[in-house]
Amino acid sequence: MTQSEPVTSTHEPSPGVVVLGENQWGKAEVRLVRIDRSQPRHRITDVNVTSQLRGEVEKAHTEGDNSLVVATDSQKNTVFALAKDGVGSPEGFALRLGEHFLSTYPWIHGGRWEVEQYTWERIPTSLATHATDGTHDHAFVRGGTETRTTVVQRDRDEVFVVSGLTDLAVLKSTGSEFHGFPRDRFTTLPETTDRILATSVTSRWRYTTTALDFDAVFADVRRVLLESFADLHSLALQQTLFHMGERVLQAHPEIAEVKLSMPNLHHFLVDLAPFGLENPNEVFYAADRPYGLIEATLTRQGTTPEPRAWATVAGFC
Amino acid sequence: MTQSEPVTSTHEPSPGVVVLGENQWGKAEVRLVRIDRSQPRHRITDVNVTSQLRGEVEKAHTEGDNSLVVATDSQKNTVFALAKDGVGSPEGFALRLGEHFLSTYPWIHGGRWEVEQYTWERIPTSLATHATDGTHDHAFVRGGTETRTTVVQRDRDEVFVVSGLTDLAVLKSTGSEFHGFPRDRFTTLPETTDRILATSVTSRWRYTTTALDFDAVFADVRRVLLESFADLHSLALQQTLFHMGERVLQAHPEIAEVKLSMPNLHHFLVDLAPFGLENPNEVFYAADRPYGLIEATLTRQGTTPEPRAWATVAGFC
Amino acid sequence: MTQSEPVTSTHEPSPGVVVLGENQWGKAEVRLVRIDRSQPRHRITDVNVTSQLRGEVEKAHTEGDNSLVVATDSQKNTVFALAKDGVGSPEGFALRLGEHFLSTYPWIHGGRWEVEQYTWERIPTSLATHATDGTHDHAFVRGGTETRTTVVQRDRDEVFVVSGLTDLAVLKSTGSEFHGFPRDRFTTLPETTDRILATSVTSRWRYTTTALDFDAVFADVRRVLLESFADLHSLALQQTLFHMGERVLQAHPEIAEVKLSMPNLHHFLVDLAPFGLENPNEVFYAADRPYGLIEATLTRQGTTPEPRAWATVAGFC
Amino acid sequence: MTQSEPVTSTHEPSPGVVVLGENQWGKAEVRLVRIDRSQPRHRITDVNVTSQLRGEVEKAHTEGDNSLVVATDSQKNTVFALAKDGVGSPEGFALRLGEHFLSTYPWIHGGRWEVEQYTWERIPTSLATHATDGTHDHAFVRGGTETRTTVVQRDRDEVFVVSGLTDLAVLKSTGSEFHGFPRDRFTTLPETTDRILATSVTSRWRYTTTALDFDAVFADVRRVLLESFADLHSLALQQTLFHMGERVLQAHPEIAEVKLSMPNLHHFLVDLAPFGLENPNEVFYAADRPYGLIEATLTRQGTTPEPRAWATVAGFC
Repeated sequence: MTQSEPVTSTHEPSPGVVVLGENQWGKAEVRLVRIDRSQPRHRITDVNVTSQLRGEVEKAHTEGDNSLVVATDSQKNTVFALAKDGVGSPEGFALRLGEHFLSTYPWIHGGRWEVEQYTWERIPTSLATHATDGTHDHAFVRGGTETRTTVVQRDRDEVFVVSGLTDLAVLKSTGSEFHGFPRDRFTTLPETTDRILATSVTSRWRYTTTALDFDAVFADVRRVLLESFADLHSLALQQTLFHMGERVLQAHPEIAEVKLSMPNLHHFLVDLAPFGLENPNEVFYAADRPYGLIEATLTRQGTTPEPRAWATVAGFC
Repeated sequence: MTQSEPVTSTHEPSPGVVVLGENQWGKAEVRLVRIDRSQPRHRITDVNVTSQLRGEVEKAHTEGDNSLVVATDSQKNTVFALAKDGVGSPEGFALRLGEHFLSTYPWIHGGRWEVEQYTWERIPTSLATHATDGTHDHAFVRGGTETRTTVVQRDRDEVFVVSGLTDLAVLKSTGSEFHGFPRDRFTTLPETTDRILATSVTSRWRYTTTALDFDAVFADVRRVLLESFADLHSLALQQTLFHMGERVLQAHPEIAEVKLSMPNLHHFLVDLAPFGLENPNEVFYAADRPYGLIEATLTRQGTTPEPRAWATVAGFC
Repeated sequence: MTQSEPVTSTHEPSPGVVVLGENQWGKAEVRLVRIDRSQPRHRITDVNVTSQLRGEVEKAHTEGDNSLVVATDSQKNTVFALAKDGVGSPEGFALRLGEHFLSTYPWIHGGRWEVEQYTWERIPTSLATHATDGTHDHAFVRGGTETRTTVVQRDRDEVFVVSGLTDLAVLKSTGSEFHGFPRDRFTTLPETTDRILATSVTSRWRYTTTALDFDAVFADVRRVLLESFADLHSLALQQTLFHMGERVLQAHPEIAEVKLSMPNLHHFLVDLAPFGLENPNEVFYAADRPYGLIEATLTRQGTTPEPRAWATVAGFC
Repeated sequence: MTQSEPVTSTHEPSPGVVVLGENQWGKAEVRLVRIDRSQPRHRITDVNVTSQLRGEVEKAHTEGDNSLVVATDSQKNTVFALAKDGVGSPEGFALRLGEHFLSTYPWIHGGRWEVEQYTWERIPTSLATHATDGTHDHAFVRGGTETRTTVVQRDRDEVFVVSGLTDLAVLKSTGSEFHGFPRDRFTTLPETTDRILATSVTSRWRYTTTALDFDAVFADVRRVLLESFADLHSLALQQTLFHMGERVLQAHPEIAEVKLSMPNLHHFLVDLAPFGLENPNEVFYAADRPYGLIEATLTRQGTTPEPRAWATVAGFC
């Protein structure tokens, strides 16, 4: 240190005034790509990992004493090191990270591990010598726009797993109505029996067990969300949302709760009358802001609430 | 509706299976700009308003019955209509929105109103005929990068106000150390007694009263956050975070809790030795990802926790 | 107007000093969604349209005389009105817009019309009554991350069409080397015979005719780009880029030039040796910045350059 | 290399078919922060540097022969190494990089160096022992939202310098009219004598000399842009744009050309009549898309055009 600044804490104890509450520290957005090269047909896992620990580190806050602070850099190293043996499902990897940290450091009593996963598909090719079934063995193109997510939390021996997806953009060009809402001084919206319904689904669901094929369950939940969005003739985005969540709970007893946050991405019918043209639901303006925002939690009846599972999970209700 | 699709809910009642839990609906990101033209020297208020209501709307979810669903479009209209009489502070405007909705619709028992505010400064000018004190009366330039925020929630007669700021980017070029952390198999980080400390502060604090000059308090909390970041010789980002939150609580008895989320935006010293050059803390590489992430809640001792105030506020701990 | 500000131009003629050069005005990013409902199986076209005109409007610049300024709002209206008869390919729609504006306004001698197109795929469903071949007739999910683009320009009777795509993310997990580059004082990069090659392709190509099935050609160019990326064993990203562009020119005589801009999205092999682990090209860190950036133009020999076609097209070389 | 893929170029010479045109390679977005610690009152330079070279590297494209390819990694190293002696102005640093590369590598005959610079301001403080004139010696807060830019290009001994700024957001709450534009079938916009005028200025200007105090000239051009935006009573955004560019050319003889790209960020007056309220230019909705887009080049009369200076500079006209 080249400065003459005195190395002292400026913490002035004000008896009884300020208390450290919930806290966590870690490394966010470790961009890990793992290639499974055990076969000529490679497999790729592309994830974004955040690791945060909770423990007895009050002195770091009040005195700058780091003796129990597992460095965020060490947490990052651990993410890479544990990937050596394979990543597997996001949930499985997050669970392994949690087990590692709690079993290694006695003063760490909990934590939070978030994994986002991006999709790659094999490139179709007619030319490759390195191809199987018309697709390339080690060349990939990014898949859809949505992201698979999981947030695993540990509180000593208790484990909470909340998985989900974000940015699943869907649209129905008919089969959606909206009418019968209250009309008063501040109401100008006309009723409609045929509109575009477009949204970008964010969903999170809480598992009640870790004895799962997480990849298979995720794929099926995604299928159910898409199918139920498509199949319901919608009278309200609320109804579509509830139907989607309900179908997920009906199909998957290992899921106790589903949260959905669905913006109503308005597609306004353009008034072409000034130009002497009709517009029978053909030409729309896709607005950016503002947008409707419908959010709900659906629970299986009799489920015990588990607020700790949802703490620090993105802020929808 | 031009399609032959039958207008029926596909909701199949499965007795006892699925229950609607917490839910809310509204209009997000209403971009409202209000000009106060009561004087030749105009004043501008530039905000992004989200209104969400909570009430007895289960039938919208299960049957598509919208008879109690105050349309999100009507909520947007209300935001604009109430701005006619002025916006004032973000907190004050959100409180007025809440009072309006709960007093107007008996079946609405709560809601959430979020306001983001952007800063404009007057353009300095030597030329204008429309200038006062060297700055223009009605021409503005965007101010700093940070955003002021508030989330006001109502649960019948109870009111919760959580205000804050995001994206306040700060940096110290010295006066920051990090050493004394545990070293084990997964530790490679060297200790340092002089590093760049850079972060982008997100903070939220809970008020215990609404009888405040919210603009004045905000300005002072921002000042305290900046000063306390600058003045502490830091032994850990945790220590800096705690110091900042503690100073806020010490200066403002009307604040019961402060949450801070501070990424450690790493500036790595570049190794110039391969090029025959020394690098005494002069040349740094500013990394994007991963970044450290330190989060904590500080509370005034004896404060009664109020989880409802923090529900649906951005997901930090 | 409530202000007493005098309505005068402040333009002070300084003889011979300042000249208006190239200029254009219009409406950017008109978000147009058109639904073809002529069959029960709907088709969706989702585009982002920018229209800009060029003409004799110097007096708007120097005097605020708008008598020849076709309002940007009117340009927006025209985009929606012309969509009434269908959009078709992005190129076809941009050509129609150009023809409309130049034939309608004698003082408009040119312009620029840009169209971005987003992909939607039908939702697979086992349940729908509104399904054909296992996919839904009017429910869609967003396709890949890339965007199809076109920039059509007119200079009186001359037409220029430059089409392309952006954000086509591809990755090879092997089959890429990089060695033999110059080594000097500033070289620290090791040579490699096996690395991940990842990029996000932006490509633009110039057509020499408009008598094309633009949709079919686009689909085939995209296929060629993907296949040629996958199939070349790469000794340099430059070699991959050239191979991709060359294949496009070889396959499509109606294309005179191809430009490619390809970031080298570095995937660094993580050093696991400090943790006692080997890392035989399995665990990688995907970096954000900096990234390599390779850009080139490939032309068919004998092609006459046409700089006007490329003017105002995104800034790569 | 663990794969059996043969290491051969797939380049099949097709005589006379495909020619490599303009091309460049380099490292983009090197995030460099340099601290000047020569005095206790530190100075910070925060830049984003892109270096791209041009030279005789056709064989890299056609054969994967990298013997003349100065690695993009080496270009990055050079950026950091040259920063050891200080960065200075963005223009000065880019010029030094160009001189270094062309004088070091005989086969490099040109290149492009782009620098973006971000603003930091000192944190005001009443407490610090490390403060001067009420501001901290080594603690900073990010300044405004705009970014200063430069693109320096070399073509052997010729040097081109185009500097500018982006994202300078400005707004006038009155003093802007728009009327007198052509009205026809596609015109619905009402005329107005009082509207909000808001834009986010992107400007680039070409210097005719390098014997400049680039920092001082930049500061003054920014001042002129702000003042001239504020002071003109505007009859059209075109008029405002021209006025701004003209003032820059009048004030700075060392600038030969100015390009401006200015979106018209629409603020629509909200119709409050349905709610029984007047709205005398007080309550506005700030729209995202679409937006007007006005672009022009202004040149000093008699200036020789220099298209090479503008090649690869962002795509506005």
